[in-house]
Amino acid sequence: MKYSNAFIPTLREVPADAVIASHRLMFRAGLIRKLANGLFAYLPLGLRSFRKVERIVREEMDAIGALEIKPTVVLPGEIWKESGRWDSMGDGMLRAKNRLDHDFVVSPTAEEAFTAIVRDELSSYRQLPLVLYQINTKFRDEIRPRYGVMRGREFMMKDAYSWNCDEQSLDETYQAMGRAYRRIFKRCGLSVIPVKADSGAMGGSGSEEFMVESDIGDNTLILCKACDYAANVEKAGCATDFTPQDSLEAAKAAATDTPAYEKIDTPNVKTIEELCGFVKNTDGSPMGPGQFIKTLIYRVINVELDLSAAPGCKNLERKKINAQDTSPSKSGASIYPEAFFAVAIRGDLDLNEIKLAAMLKASEVGLASDADVVRLTGAPVGFAGPVGLDSLPVIADLTVTGMNDAVTGALAKDLHYRHVAYGRDFSPWMVGDLRTVKAGDACALCGGELYEKKGNELGHIFKLGYKYTGSMNANYLDENGKSQTPTMGSYGIGIDRALASVIEEHNDEAGIVWPVSVAPYHIVVVPIKYDGAAKAAADRLCEELENSGIEVLLDDRNERPGVKFNDADLIGIPWRVLVGDKGLAQSPPAVEVKRRNQKENRMVELDVAAKELEREVREELALLNG
Amino acid sequence: MKYSNAFIPTLREVPADAVIASHRLMFRAGLIRKLANGLFAYLPLGLRSFRKVERIVREEMDAIGALEIKPTVVLPGEIWKESGRWDSMGDGMLRAKNRLDHDFVVSPTAEEAFTAIVRDELSSYRQLPLVLYQINTKFRDEIRPRYGVMRGREFMMKDAYSWNCDEQSLDETYQAMGRAYRRIFKRCGLSVIPVKADSGAMGGSGSEEFMVESDIGDNTLILCKACDYAANVEKAGCATDFTPQDSLEAAKAAATDTPAYEKIDTPNVKTIEELCGFVKNTDGSPMGPGQFIKTLIYRVINVELDLSAAPGCKNLERKKINAQDTSPSKSGASIYPEAFFAVAIRGDLDLNEIKLAAMLKASEVGLASDADVVRLTGAPVGFAGPVGLDSLPVIADLTVTGMNDAVTGALAKDLHYRHVAYGRDFSPWMVGDLRTVKAGDACALCGGELYEKKGNELGHIFKLGYKYTGSMNANYLDENGKSQTPTMGSYGIGIDRALASVIEEHNDEAGIVWPVSVAPYHIVVVPIKYDGAAKAAADRLCEELENSGIEVLLDDRNERPGVKFNDADLIGIPWRVLVGDKGLAQSPPAVEVKRRNQKENRMVELDVAAKELEREVREELALLNG
Repeated sequence: MKYSNAFIPTLREVPADAVIASHRLMFRAGLIRKLANGLFAYLPLGLRSFRKVERIVREEMDAIGALEIKPTVVLPGEIWKESGRWDSMGDGMLRAKNRLDHDFVVSPTAEEAFTAIVRDELSSYRQLPLVLYQINTKFRDEIRPRYGVMRGREFMMKDAYSWNCDEQSLDETYQAMGRAYRRIFKRCGLSVIPVKADSGAMGGSGSEEFMVESDIGDNTLILCKACDYAANVEKAGCATDFTPQDSLEAAKAAATDTPAYEKIDTPNVKTIEELCGFVKNTDGSPMGPGQFIKTLIYRVINVELDLSAAPGCKNLERKKINAQDTSPSKSGASIYPEAFFAVAIRGDLDLNEIKLAAMLKASEVGLASDADVVRLTGAPVGFAGPVGLDSLPVIADLTVTGMNDAVTGALAKDLHYRHVAYGRDFSPWMVGDLRTVKAGDACALCGGELYEKKGNELGHIFKLGYKYTGSMNANYLDENGKSQTPTMGSYGIGIDRALASVIEEHNDEAGIVWPVSVAPYHIVVVPIKYDGAAKAAADRLCEELENSGIEVLLDDRNERPGVKFNDADLIGIPWRVLVGDKGLAQSPPAVEVKRRNQKENRMVELDVAAKELEREVREELALLNG
Repeated sequence: MKYSNAFIPTLREVPADAVIASHRLMFRAGLIRKLANGLFAYLPLGLRSFRKVERIVREEMDAIGALEIKPTVVLPGEIWKESGRWDSMGDGMLRAKNRLDHDFVVSPTAEEAFTAIVRDELSSYRQLPLVLYQINTKFRDEIRPRYGVMRGREFMMKDAYSWNCDEQSLDETYQAMGRAYRRIFKRCGLSVIPVKADSGAMGGSGSEEFMVESDIGDNTLILCKACDYAANVEKAGCATDFTPQDSLEAAKAAATDTPAYEKIDTPNVKTIEELCGFVKNTDGSPMGPGQFIKTLIYRVINVELDLSAAPGCKNLERKKINAQDTSPSKSGASIYPEAFFAVAIRGDLDLNEIKLAAMLKASEVGLASDADVVRLTGAPVGFAGPVGLDSLPVIADLTVTGMNDAVTGALAKDLHYRHVAYGRDFSPWMVGDLRTVKAGDACALCGGELYEKKGNELGHIFKLGYKYTGSMNANYLDENGKSQTPTMGSYGIGIDRALASVIEEHNDEAGIVWPVSVAPYHIVVVPIKYDGAAKAAADRLCEELENSGIEVLLDDRNERPGVKFNDADLIGIPWRVLVGDKGLAQSPPAVEVKRRNQKENRMVELDVAAKELEREVREELALLNG
């Protein structure tokens, strides 16, 4: 391909909003242009790299027996209503009504569409496991689209879905996907951090995110300095720095030396910080935040967990979420649209609301309003505590089980209790890990020091279970002719984000430094002047390379060598071959070969240059693909 | 690929709405499934063929130097407002508002998006001609989506656009596209009818549609039995069966023997049919419809043609259509939102409203209301005529110029004129070809008999001119540093429709008969039983074929041979290889090869079968691609 025909509008300047390397370089190298906020067009050079990422993903999906299909991008609203996500997806989903007033959705994901297709074809267990995927347009109306295609509104996603007879089969598919994902990222030259999340469900880990480190990442990762522990802060755990009690009896026993709890006056003292200065130990030293039990009142939306036996929840409104059952046990799923909880945690720790939502199987958690706090605790904000609190369920973080002489709010203005012991003075409705793990905490696996990194999610594999097959009534007949609901998995990779991440990882001050697997062209041939002997040699070299399947860009422009070199560096082609009169005048005639990622260049005999370059390209491709 | 892993849900029954062969067969062969009215998902087998059509289109676009880009499917509403099509596209365009109340469009076509990209990059004449294309999702909200993917709501389109310095350059791109289109359709095994339409503009034909014959076609084609004349009825012309007069003087001269026109009473006689029975020739014979001038009053919306000198139009409202100029002459385009015309045509002919709209450069034409007719002609419907009509412009079909003794309405209830002569008794404001050509008319090129066919449009190449570059302000500097507006072309192919048309053309009672270029697999290998020696032989044959790049489906199912044969015929794989104990027991062992499009089969030695089949596949591919 001749440069002058390739429509590569490189730029010196970049838009002010391009703050990360990939966004800047994709603009400057003429890979993308902006159509509107969060909407980008790939220009020819960008599309070539984009297609290579796409092809790598497709090859690895095909290699594990996943079958590609192509549903529509615009999906009927009805199937979203069936699954219940018409309501739960919120404003991020772009909706449209057509001339007949029918509801449509521009696909943000496709669990419903795939399940709608599969349920009509599924009859026998012999068809399972079934793994289908698409690489297709998605739209999510990001509130703040930015960072170029790293967080655009429209993007391409490979989304795969599996239907399996049982948990073991699902796990096999899930593991195969995980291996395919590792190969995909390796082939793209991407260093990913696989972040497992123990979902607590049967079958071990039910979710794995593939992250790349990024200063502007959406995710905070917790990593161990000593071992390979890696977790999203949303789910990260850590080693305990206290003695948890796993029974109320043991807790009571641990509190035998603790005096009976008693009221203390704490006028206008509401926060942990204020309490630390105010309440003293018996030796007169000020108490540390770890000696307090912090009790927060939460308002929680759409709780799926059964609360029928929870304190204060007897008359709570509960409603079916779907006409269809969503569980294989056909028990009929239902939710509490609104419920309140008191959550107790050691005073030096932060509560992780995502863990809380997961524990309650809820769609949304947030601090209750002041009025609700007063109504539920009988005291203004700042004086809640677990002792004597029976108007709502109390949930305790695991750390609270190790506290046998603590200070807590006393459910009355300006009053706290001291000498409160878990198990003796109160027993929560539930106990679980709800703390936010921070840098400096100890690794649960090896005790090593944990640290934090920002990361962007490139891919996610996830065991879905029966949510869609249950609500959308997808069934098959098992070996005994009995109707069964298959369990599902969902597996996504963002193509645009993967491409941008390649650039984030492979660039220098001069531009992009493409891994050969994703480079728009393998080689750029730069004649000093596209004229005379240099033209003849460059043409011949390009022809030989192209005939052997190597992708070559020939810079035929009438520009100064400096301009050509700068553009070659900017667009990041892995090999640059300079064809000039000086080299051609050598005996035998030679060209100058330079790798984009190396400083040195070397002379290669013109007659063997194509063969040698082909070998190098293929070796490096094999290295990435190996 | 093993059949049992390929997810090919073949069916005996088809939905009741599947009335055409391709729709029926795409369902039955498991190529597509319906997600909603007009929305179809391609299953694995269908997607394989779909991708092959896509690849053929891509290869031919690349071969003529067109560059692929990828704008978004969801486009910002602003660029549609710039071009003016936000208002003119109507309900067929799916619109959505996002959470910020911004307008979006699910791309029905992409002139605006491409022009928006190009205008920012275009600086010099040296960048032109530039040809960009995409193969991407489109959505058009068909009023009655039907016939499967032949007329779906969402579909994939290859849409290319060119920007050229001048008409000659545009014509070169246009001709190259036309040749590429012919190669694309040939490679897909499609017989297309290229239908040229002389747009009347400089540079000759400015539009060519590539049609396939179809009983359910949207288009009526006029074809000549004797030569290769082919035209859309919307634009078709024919030989004249009268002596047209090209000047009023000549017309007057031709009318010297005609008596002066006179009123005749025609009580309650309004239609041509009624007039034929009522009005007699001087020899007493009833007049034929060809002796009458039919005069129709039209209401026309958005007329771009200049009417400042037209009768009755002096005070007509006229308004600018865009803030931007739309013509290279920068004269500033404007339209008449509403105008009325009297259109005269020989009584035995039908007026072609599309020709009328094209002549007036109008967006919509329709018969005027009865009240408007009374207001404008002073008479009820049925008595309009060109003589003395000066309240609105009179447009005459070419046939009227040959009429020198005709009957017309007399602009008064129950009255007509006879002995009316064109040029002597009236002279229209404009004359042009406005007749609807019908089967039986004579070919304008050779005089042969014209006939009609229904056709579906698969592709369209079109010289756009300055509509988008003008309204969206895309400019470049010419050799002299002067700002110029490039002229544009637009070139589309519907991928889904092309695929369905391949099936329409290549099927029999047993199923699809794929051309090898588009077949999902080249060969299906059918072991009578996938077991023992037959399994070993089938596996070996498949491996050999796949190693040489041939695409093989191995029917490993535990089904009766009849079921496997029926499915192989239904899904239409070009070669079927039967591996059975009988053939394998021969010395040397052999397999039975059958072509899908032939009745006979033949035995081929197992040892050479892979080589021989590969050769046959490659030969046939070369034949289509050649």
